Amino acid sequence: MAERFIHMQHLRFLLREVFAEESKNLFSEKDMKSWDLVLNAAYDFAKTALHPLFSEMDRETPHLENGTVRVHPAIGPLLRQMGKDGWISAGLPQKQGGEGLPSMLLHACTAIFASANYSASVYSALSMGAARLIATYGCEALKDFYLPPLLAGRWQGTMALTEAEAGSSLGDLSCEAIPAGEGVYRIRGRKVFISAADHDGVENVVHLMLARIDGAPPGVKGISLFVVPKFRPELGGLRDNDITVTQIFHKMGYRGAPIAELSMGEKNDCLGYLIGMENRGLSAMFQMMNGARLEVGMGAAAIATAAYQAALEYTKSRKQGRRMGASSISEPVAIIEHADVKRMLLDQRAIAEGAMALVLQCGLYEDALHTLTGEAARERHLLLDLLTPVAKSYAAEQGIFSVSQSIQCFGGYGYCEDFPVEQHFRDMRIHAIHEGTTGIQAMDLLGRKVMMEKGLPLRLLAKEIRTTLQKAEQDEALAPMAKNLEQALHTLEKTTGILGLWALEAGAEAFLADATLYLEAFGLVTVGWQWLKQAIFARKNSGTARGAAASFYEGKTNVCRYYFAYHLPKHAALCHRLMTKEALTLSIQTEHFS
Amino acid sequence: MAERFIHMQHLRFLLREVFAEESKNLFSEKDMKSWDLVLNAAYDFAKTALHPLFSEMDRETPHLENGTVRVHPAIGPLLRQMGKDGWISAGLPQKQGGEGLPSMLLHACTAIFASANYSASVYSALSMGAARLIATYGCEALKDFYLPPLLAGRWQGTMALTEAEAGSSLGDLSCEAIPAGEGVYRIRGRKVFISAADHDGVENVVHLMLARIDGAPPGVKGISLFVVPKFRPELGGLRDNDITVTQIFHKMGYRGAPIAELSMGEKNDCLGYLIGMENRGLSAMFQMMNGARLEVGMGAAAIATAAYQAALEYTKSRKQGRRMGASSISEPVAIIEHADVKRMLLDQRAIAEGAMALVLQCGLYEDALHTLTGEAARERHLLLDLLTPVAKSYAAEQGIFSVSQSIQCFGGYGYCEDFPVEQHFRDMRIHAIHEGTTGIQAMDLLGRKVMMEKGLPLRLLAKEIRTTLQKAEQDEALAPMAKNLEQALHTLEKTTGILGLWALEAGAEAFLADATLYLEAFGLVTVGWQWLKQAIFARKNSGTARGAAASFYEGKTNVCRYYFAYHLPKHAALCHRLMTKEALTLSIQTEHFS
Repeated sequence: MAERFIHMQHLRFLLREVFAEESKNLFSEKDMKSWDLVLNAAYDFAKTALHPLFSEMDRETPHLENGTVRVHPAIGPLLRQMGKDGWISAGLPQKQGGEGLPSMLLHACTAIFASANYSASVYSALSMGAARLIATYGCEALKDFYLPPLLAGRWQGTMALTEAEAGSSLGDLSCEAIPAGEGVYRIRGRKVFISAADHDGVENVVHLMLARIDGAPPGVKGISLFVVPKFRPELGGLRDNDITVTQIFHKMGYRGAPIAELSMGEKNDCLGYLIGMENRGLSAMFQMMNGARLEVGMGAAAIATAAYQAALEYTKSRKQGRRMGASSISEPVAIIEHADVKRMLLDQRAIAEGAMALVLQCGLYEDALHTLTGEAARERHLLLDLLTPVAKSYAAEQGIFSVSQSIQCFGGYGYCEDFPVEQHFRDMRIHAIHEGTTGIQAMDLLGRKVMMEKGLPLRLLAKEIRTTLQKAEQDEALAPMAKNLEQALHTLEKTTGILGLWALEAGAEAFLADATLYLEAFGLVTVGWQWLKQAIFARKNSGTARGAAASFYEGKTNVCRYYFAYHLPKHAALCHRLMTKEALTLSIQTEHFS
Repeated sequence: MAERFIHMQHLRFLLREVFAEESKNLFSEKDMKSWDLVLNAAYDFAKTALHPLFSEMDRETPHLENGTVRVHPAIGPLLRQMGKDGWISAGLPQKQGGEGLPSMLLHACTAIFASANYSASVYSALSMGAARLIATYGCEALKDFYLPPLLAGRWQGTMALTEAEAGSSLGDLSCEAIPAGEGVYRIRGRKVFISAADHDGVENVVHLMLARIDGAPPGVKGISLFVVPKFRPELGGLRDNDITVTQIFHKMGYRGAPIAELSMGEKNDCLGYLIGMENRGLSAMFQMMNGARLEVGMGAAAIATAAYQAALEYTKSRKQGRRMGASSISEPVAIIEHADVKRMLLDQRAIAEGAMALVLQCGLYEDALHTLTGEAARERHLLLDLLTPVAKSYAAEQGIFSVSQSIQCFGGYGYCEDFPVEQHFRDMRIHAIHEGTTGIQAMDLLGRKVMMEKGLPLRLLAKEIRTTLQKAEQDEALAPMAKNLEQALHTLEKTTGILGLWALEAGAEAFLADATLYLEAFGLVTVGWQWLKQAIFARKNSGTARGAAASFYEGKTNVCRYYFAYHLPKHAALCHRLMTKEALTLSIQTEHFS
């Protein structure tokens, strides 16, 4: 078991240096000073309570026993502790019993918890998400009843969207809700892949569930959102609400959290409580889902971070081989001395720290959106919407390669259960799937976000990036990289324009056929931007730094150089392909596959 | 469980069409006609005996019980059946009790067995490798004693190289051999990560083990090769040879085969029998290892193939979503109709079938080397040596991405144990590690193979590739791709030249710092070549084809187009980086990592 799962200096650098200037417009100096306390508390909790269970929760997996899901016995106490310490309420406004922490800081805490133990971190995150949704859309009665136990960690919150016949195609979901008077509905149907859908660590489970009210229009415009508890209130007590766990899924990784299939209303006695407006459930749910997408991105970045930390520790201590040219009978060196090992470590940092910065940037836009008003707020909203699929997918997809390199640093040992990286590899792979697959994110980016308001979101992003470029150009060490990024950004803009025209010429299907490549190219540019931002501050603050601090800054600049030399160039080939305007995949028929 | 793990038409197309012309110079028409019988027999065995155990062997993993490794009870009978059916002796010359099958055909059989059940396929392959080594280097007494039970599947063969302190650095291995008279040595030391090192499915285990004879020179020039059995011959019977299994490794995948740590001579009573010359063990072992590297490459290609077949079946049957532009209340379509899903399927084929062709090409060079003489044989030898690290690593590294896409085709179900792809993902990940990590292959390619005989191997390869290009240029549908490949090949040659000069200027460490990128670029060009070869025959033979055969050929050409549009372009960025001559990784110090 690796000692260190995250190096806090990276988070502090991002929050207190890289994003400090942007934060000053949003937060008071006093608030910002308190962030260190929050981060330290999160780290202490992660280190003492979550990380020690990392392997154990992977091995002692949830199981279904007489209709109840049994999870690791530590889960219940952990959740209640997180409730008591304010981690579940952290994201709610103070007037609703929360801590009112900024979104950026919350994402930083997610990074800490998820790098310590990804599976353990999702329980409280789901409860927080459910509570926020109830706080935003619920009536006073629902808030009064559901928020206190959710925030205390006594009850579990979930997001219940997916159905077996409607995975990525939400418009097809068929769970039904029959009006039973005054905002109450009888729910009938099935849901699959519901995280923390049921477990014996809590007294009750509160599902935020999408269903169709009887007679609603077909497709996404007929979906409503309900609070559907496992036990519902009755006569001052609780009674069973007719939800059956029909199976739990046995997964490759992410094994500490139960993912279940639920059947509602088998005895026609499952009640749900409408929240928000009828048939407008999807847009309400998207509040929770967009937050969850960023959490998934941060989860992936955090897992990559933990795997990198394990690889770093191992490569520093493991001795094997010699530097090139050294005598074959000289003492072996630590493998971190080998160029190929350094390259793999740089690769992991480029991905993990780049992705982490991008999610925090999204958090900052979210905070700005709540603090600023008018046009400024609207712009931040568009930027947040634009970057959410990018941050989620970059971390999830590149994270697979990153952890694969972590394994490679260990050689054969990396493939064995004695070290944590094989579990990180398994835990990582879910992120490109849950909360919307990469393909769905790609269509969301190119088909919706980029095309909104005549392309305004991308123009706003380009402006943000060029502000960074102007700063970078003033440092001669960074100016060549700024030039490369300007070129990449320009190519991305050009590609977007050409695709936009092609959409008119060739139709939506051809336009979106390679959306996944567009998403990848978009990710390379935006993460390049985040690296340049980091390098600017690393260069600026390194002047007065000594010893370990100086090395830290030097390291940051080096990873930025690495990113620009090894990662960003992939962008050109992707854009070239996209501009070729030849939807190769459309001309290939099903019968050509054999 | 997916029904189909491999589609035999792909193998037949390669052996009987793509490589037919080259084969005609080496084999009689009669021999070539018998190949179908061999392939069909392999398929029947894989389907009925190996594939049904695919999941079960992953779940009921080997365990150590009172010093003996217990494996799945089917292993013993399987091995004896494979012995009886001639699969273990298949690669040995007929005069040594073998079947004398061509190497290319053997690799095709490996593809069949490994796609059905990778773990199950390695036992017999290891025995065949050990038997071949004994047949080549052993004296008559050793051959008479060891070959019959190994070939009959009653005894297990292994390759025992790795030690805990000398993984990729073989020169450091320290297992010692003290002369005990007449080719007999007392062996003392430990080995780790030995596949099939011990199990209860066989009566004896025969290790082909590297050790140092007392007083041998340090480094790789002091390593000798020994036959070290678990039970050694004595008085017409067998007695325990003092080898202890000290642990077995619990792995992420490849879980059906036991990987163990062995301790030899704890009671100073472990005898080994020298084979080959003293201190020349490594070059003898490399015969086995080079074969094993191609097997690993084929194993990876085979796993990617099986995962693709599972994804293909699923995407054809799973209905979800609609074609773009279709009414939202129309019936959902099979997901294979979505462009992004087709792209993922093409991606898997581009990798799996491309890698498979490249390994078969290597097999053909090996066959040529045994059949031809003089300069022609020597050229084939150089080509085989050059392409072995490429074929191994391309399949192993790209295979990870390929199976990751297979999972993605399944969505959430791909992450669950109900479908085979999550196991394929776990099984795949060992291939970039065992039989030499990707980093080691890269240094072998750039630091040794490419630089041999003043660059002759690459010139020979370029000549082979250009022969294919000339043919492709005559078909106007393929001519643009031929042009692209010529450009990529030219860039690779140029890059190689510049790196060669840089080696003189900047030294070996800088020269080899990015060898892994060079290996990747090399793989992209050579697999492009293999795709063009396939497309040439697909186009040629499609003229008279009808129905499914026509679709098959059309599909092949489409995958080739896809490869050239989506994969080959990555080559340019890699070569650009390599030609930058800036060893970024060397200037970064250990203390910069945090």
